[in-house]
Amino acid sequence: MRFKLGCQLDYTVVTSTTLFLNIEAQGNDHQVIEAQSLSVTPRVSLERYHAPESANIYERALLQPGQYLIRYDAEVSLSPLQHDPQSVSEVAVSDLPFSTLTYLYPSRYCQSDQLRHFAWREFGGLERGHQRVTAMCNWIFNNVEYLAGSSNYETSAAETFSRRAGVCRDFAHLGITMCRALGIPARFVSAYGWQLEPPDFHAVFEAYLGGRWYLFDPTRLCPLDGIVRIGVGHDAGTTAFSTFYGTIDNPQQQVWIHPADAGVKTSLDWTTGAISTASM
Amino acid sequence: MRFKLGCQLDYTVVTSTTLFLNIEAQGNDHQVIEAQSLSVTPRVSLERYHAPESANIYERALLQPGQYLIRYDAEVSLSPLQHDPQSVSEVAVSDLPFSTLTYLYPSRYCQSDQLRHFAWREFGGLERGHQRVTAMCNWIFNNVEYLAGSSNYETSAAETFSRRAGVCRDFAHLGITMCRALGIPARFVSAYGWQLEPPDFHAVFEAYLGGRWYLFDPTRLCPLDGIVRIGVGHDAGTTAFSTFYGTIDNPQQQVWIHPADAGVKTSLDWTTGAISTASM
Amino acid sequence: MRFKLGCQLDYTVVTSTTLFLNIEAQGNDHQVIEAQSLSVTPRVSLERYHAPESANIYERALLQPGQYLIRYDAEVSLSPLQHDPQSVSEVAVSDLPFSTLTYLYPSRYCQSDQLRHFAWREFGGLERGHQRVTAMCNWIFNNVEYLAGSSNYETSAAETFSRRAGVCRDFAHLGITMCRALGIPARFVSAYGWQLEPPDFHAVFEAYLGGRWYLFDPTRLCPLDGIVRIGVGHDAGTTAFSTFYGTIDNPQQQVWIHPADAGVKTSLDWTTGAISTASM
Amino acid sequence: MRFKLGCQLDYTVVTSTTLFLNIEAQGNDHQVIEAQSLSVTPRVSLERYHAPESANIYERALLQPGQYLIRYDAEVSLSPLQHDPQSVSEVAVSDLPFSTLTYLYPSRYCQSDQLRHFAWREFGGLERGHQRVTAMCNWIFNNVEYLAGSSNYETSAAETFSRRAGVCRDFAHLGITMCRALGIPARFVSAYGWQLEPPDFHAVFEAYLGGRWYLFDPTRLCPLDGIVRIGVGHDAGTTAFSTFYGTIDNPQQQVWIHPADAGVKTSLDWTTGAISTASM
Repeated sequence: MRFKLGCQLDYTVVTSTTLFLNIEAQGNDHQVIEAQSLSVTPRVSLERYHAPESANIYERALLQPGQYLIRYDAEVSLSPLQHDPQSVSEVAVSDLPFSTLTYLYPSRYCQSDQLRHFAWREFGGLERGHQRVTAMCNWIFNNVEYLAGSSNYETSAAETFSRRAGVCRDFAHLGITMCRALGIPARFVSAYGWQLEPPDFHAVFEAYLGGRWYLFDPTRLCPLDGIVRIGVGHDAGTTAFSTFYGTIDNPQQQVWIHPADAGVKTSLDWTTGAISTASM
Repeated sequence: MRFKLGCQLDYTVVTSTTLFLNIEAQGNDHQVIEAQSLSVTPRVSLERYHAPESANIYERALLQPGQYLIRYDAEVSLSPLQHDPQSVSEVAVSDLPFSTLTYLYPSRYCQSDQLRHFAWREFGGLERGHQRVTAMCNWIFNNVEYLAGSSNYETSAAETFSRRAGVCRDFAHLGITMCRALGIPARFVSAYGWQLEPPDFHAVFEAYLGGRWYLFDPTRLCPLDGIVRIGVGHDAGTTAFSTFYGTIDNPQQQVWIHPADAGVKTSLDWTTGAISTASM
Repeated sequence: MRFKLGCQLDYTVVTSTTLFLNIEAQGNDHQVIEAQSLSVTPRVSLERYHAPESANIYERALLQPGQYLIRYDAEVSLSPLQHDPQSVSEVAVSDLPFSTLTYLYPSRYCQSDQLRHFAWREFGGLERGHQRVTAMCNWIFNNVEYLAGSSNYETSAAETFSRRAGVCRDFAHLGITMCRALGIPARFVSAYGWQLEPPDFHAVFEAYLGGRWYLFDPTRLCPLDGIVRIGVGHDAGTTAFSTFYGTIDNPQQQVWIHPADAGVKTSLDWTTGAISTASM
Repeated sequence: MRFKLGCQLDYTVVTSTTLFLNIEAQGNDHQVIEAQSLSVTPRVSLERYHAPESANIYERALLQPGQYLIRYDAEVSLSPLQHDPQSVSEVAVSDLPFSTLTYLYPSRYCQSDQLRHFAWREFGGLERGHQRVTAMCNWIFNNVEYLAGSSNYETSAAETFSRRAGVCRDFAHLGITMCRALGIPARFVSAYGWQLEPPDFHAVFEAYLGGRWYLFDPTRLCPLDGIVRIGVGHDAGTTAFSTFYGTIDNPQQQVWIHPADAGVKTSLDWTTGAISTASM
């Protein structure tokens, strides 16, 4: 399935500011970049970096004070791997690739050490495999209210767990935290999410199962085969679409994604399909 | 039922120290002090205070450096009010006595504002009354592990809720927090708890229902009609048996309570009886 | 000095709601209520309560769904006690009235247990007395940025201490916390604050010194002799001007205070005067 | 300078347990492994992993229930780079290697977002370079008490900042947090620390300055040229010497390090030398 997507950022830079962007869709066999363009008006020098351990694409720019318009447009074909969830097992910690271990540790927003007791009580006895992570997502969906404005950039999974309210990044943090508490590597994924209302950057997560990274969206706001991956990281703190060192006044953003073809639809049962779009 | 109870504190005072004790059992119609004695060796001047709003008994002493032995002995007859739980209703916030309102607010260890969402989701739809608070106690008993050493004096209900482990004070804090979140006044009660193993000061809580304060013990470690009340307060921070301003090295304590008569037993179903021993 | 002051609350009540108000100025020898009126439109039955331990005045109303306009107007003469700060000493914990002890304990937003080390390091060695609390206020003023929007109703003193930003309630919480950590009873005071910009309810604090409660305002936003006290309590959690159990949509409020006579001015050095307006 | 060092771990494994160790000293030009041995008794299969992004050496073993003795011995020659602190400048964020960016973000124990205000107020105006990080270390040393038992494995830098007490890992976390808040990449370093009393694993940190990683030890417990690096990571959560999935009863450990030659001494001024032992 093919999507047109992109974003536009309007930034009023007040002091000399170093800006990092992570807005480009990742390209790989399951997510092919058919076309894309990135422009900054007025023109500035952009340094582009492809992070080998994450496949994230970063741009860096040193911006002098002024008004900037940043626009990214892409056309992306998604052909996610889709497996029978029953056939996707967990990988014992003793067999995990060492490169996945970094996603087992607690991080800024995912204090898996603090929720260990709960995670084991609630999910420890369930049959292992993809369906166990689905059970976590169902628990989150059923127990946490999706409530715009109920959290802020400091809110962590332990707080979301207590407060029982949050937005997509909080839902993802909670899913990641439960997975890590049970010894399943999990990481944050920022994305263009088709059908997200209102349109914005979306946040989901991936768990490492059966030798691959599988996507999960506990918000059920987007079909899993309509999620175009941008960045992966330990949590929202390391996976921001925009990070700056300096001063930007009242940053504005617009995000869009829609099918490139008319009449398409997805058919996935949103929280039970086992689908993967990661290159590694 | 009649109990012999008391405690002994061995304090090595290193610098001039002001000590507050709250170790005397409260006396009222349901908890009659038959006899009691309080001694400090070597003798010091004790100032005794009966707090009108709580019925707590405090002693204050200014201790110069030295070794002190404080011993409290009492014989107490308990004749708790016992009601049919089905008949004990909640009091609408619009009808609560103003004096109970202070026990509706969040306190240091009971952040009822933070657990409001959960409390409403889990208990908001239950039938109101004594049985709803019992349902909270059952939830705590079933979801939080009683684990010595799992918490410390800084641990609050929001943390206990996330960590799912604690001791009696944490269990009481969590019960208080759930009650307050639902508009039920609730307060901390320190106590001599018969059958508590190992013997120590116990912590339970009271909820204001049907015009009285009813006892609840989510730990199920003591029969409700074997609990001799010492102090009530907003939470453990304001209800310590001993508070000092100065330096005491390695404070030691012993606590005991046993029936004054041989062969007694209690018959209560621990978490479902509606019993009250408060004077107000 | 005489002030006209008041507030107006516009409430759209959505479900049956119990409302508590604490908006009336306290009346005592130092703060005389010359005239006042409180109206709710449409008219509802108001229950008025004068809390004996705090001198706070509460109103309670049970509101059915609908639109309500609540308006309070008062004319108040302030004649604060004013002492030489050098003459106002601290009271040793061993001599404190028992009724002040409740303001020594940590509370929801004032975790004096957590900031004890800092308080002792920074202020432990200073000369005791009114000027030590002034030193705390100066520290807060110099180290915490007054920044609208930097905190929310969950923000506590420990967070404000780390984040170094807050608004008046956070400044008050921090002052209270430092005092308690050093054994000085301290409590939250909500107020009408002359010259506060933009006009709103103000928050300051009181410390118990030399046998009285003295006012402190670490924000330096209002002259201490232009502060008309409304409520006192452990912290903002127990001293809200409005608390409701039910649903109110988008509550609006206006607050005002100005001199009743033309041409008045205050002459206090804001953070160093020792002034008191408490009845007890 | 040459050291003999090592550790011994006594583990009683109760259930099948996957163990990760990170106890081997890193080998590079500035820290040459002259000899080393690692044994597990009884013998088990060890999987060894050299993490390319950190130079950490991990061992993994799947342990069946039983008693295990793990012993590591090494002889290591340290020849740290030593520069004039005045000559070591900071690297502008716009010039940082992308691979260092991961050490700019907040992590589980280093909430640099929360301490940003303080860091800027306290250190923002200082001259940039190695001496600015030294100023942070001096601040930590002067304002935080080194107090065994004052923290636990959940304690984060924001808490240490408020509580003003901690141990070596807390000191390192605080230094890392201040650096990141100011845009200086910083990371946790676990180490064998000569002269640490009582002997244990040590924790220090590295800041990225002038194109290299420089060591800092705000505890001043060890000379910087007596620190043998083991692991680097975002914080203590990702840099544990031992991590296990399973159950180990009462794990015991011994750690040692001493000069291989008699009569040696270090000459560094502990917190002002600019020394580096990192390979990258």
